[in-house]
Amino acid sequence: MDVAIITVGDELLSGDTVNTNANWLATQLAERGVAVERILSVPDDRESIADRVAAYGEAFDAVIVTGGIGGTPDDVTVEAVADAFDRELTVTELARSDVERRLAEIQERLPEHDLAVDVDAEAALPEGSRPLLNDEGLAPGCVLENVYVFPGIPDELQAMFASVAEEFAGDRRSRFLYTVEPEANIVHALEEAMDRFAVTVGCYPDREAGHNRLKVTGTDDDVETAADWLLEAIDASETPVSRDWSG
Amino acid sequence: MDVAIITVGDELLSGDTVNTNANWLATQLAERGVAVERILSVPDDRESIADRVAAYGEAFDAVIVTGGIGGTPDDVTVEAVADAFDRELTVTELARSDVERRLAEIQERLPEHDLAVDVDAEAALPEGSRPLLNDEGLAPGCVLENVYVFPGIPDELQAMFASVAEEFAGDRRSRFLYTVEPEANIVHALEEAMDRFAVTVGCYPDREAGHNRLKVTGTDDDVETAADWLLEAIDASETPVSRDWSG
Repeated sequence: MDVAIITVGDELLSGDTVNTNANWLATQLAERGVAVERILSVPDDRESIADRVAAYGEAFDAVIVTGGIGGTPDDVTVEAVADAFDRELTVTELARSDVERRLAEIQERLPEHDLAVDVDAEAALPEGSRPLLNDEGLAPGCVLENVYVFPGIPDELQAMFASVAEEFAGDRRSRFLYTVEPEANIVHALEEAMDRFAVTVGCYPDREAGHNRLKVTGTDDDVETAADWLLEAIDASETPVSRDWSG
Repeated sequence: MDVAIITVGDELLSGDTVNTNANWLATQLAERGVAVERILSVPDDRESIADRVAAYGEAFDAVIVTGGIGGTPDDVTVEAVADAFDRELTVTELARSDVERRLAEIQERLPEHDLAVDVDAEAALPEGSRPLLNDEGLAPGCVLENVYVFPGIPDELQAMFASVAEEFAGDRRSRFLYTVEPEANIVHALEEAMDRFAVTVGCYPDREAGHNRLKVTGTDDDVETAADWLLEAIDASETPVSRDWSG
């Protein structure tokens, strides 16, 4: 299964916010064997979001869109996802009653606030989508075809993702190897491994740890075979090794 | 000036690495008034990189590509950028002598290593590109048309970006306002501000600080006028205010 992640928000593009949501999602998906093929940040712009949701929806098994749901005018993600599938927004009983329930809970917690929430605006979702309830916030997410829409606030995102995590699964796995050989000396072996087996081999120099970390990624059998071959071909180890690189 | 950032590397898509490079670049560009319109992470895959470099090169004033330069087989960024412009790779005297100079420096620091570096492979850049010297690492970057290619190692990236930072400039600016009004109560004012003036207004609830932070973004005059209008229209302040949201 391959997935694209779209994180929506001007604050990501201006550097105000580090994109920890994308990293968190990528980790969760990788642990489930899913291949994340794209991580894209786009501004709070309806057309830009719709364009990429449509393109990634075609290209990948699933798309996760996070951020830009809710009631302020910079929140255009739900509208954009509807646009991508040429749907209207609609308010279902389920979504409305859930927003009302959450609103009552929030009002109870903050009794001095008079919250003028437009419940229908908050609950509106693309026609035909499956609502995802937001137990940590107010605005619901949804699933439309193969596109998942989650909130951008990390607590809300994480709770909502957990509710559908089992829908994400794949057969991709990785194995790490470690070597103190300088990168330049193992280039040919890495190339040969990628030629011989259906894997990718990443090489990550870690100066602090004093080694190069190799990551062999593919599906089950390929990874085993390729990693075993590499252990024979170069001076590498399955457990971290180190060498003083300071000379 | 608008810019797209492409960060290359499987390690970003598997969640192994938080994309701090993108955040660092976005901050630098925003400080220079540049609008960052896309931040995209793609795998170490030549075709995927080339496809986006070509598309973003058309769509935006400049593209910054970072990561995946160097000598291991997962480093395909330079080849991909050449593909995007239908160029061959070539080794210029300048690039070769710079790699040799850097290699000599590294060898002097690590005399016990016998580095079998393929200098020509390391120094190869797309025909017609301007080499960018890498004083913190080995592989040079380059500029081809409106595409900037930088290393992915943060120290190397930051030093190389500094050498061309003045080529990035724009007239976008932002002003922050703060309000203790609940988001739901200021929606209409935010909408009206975006209708009246050529600005975007982001609204960022900060529960810890006990306020909503508003970010008004546009060009000079528009931002001033819109922010002044908002200060009149809602109970907002130019300095942080706070309120106990715990009820």
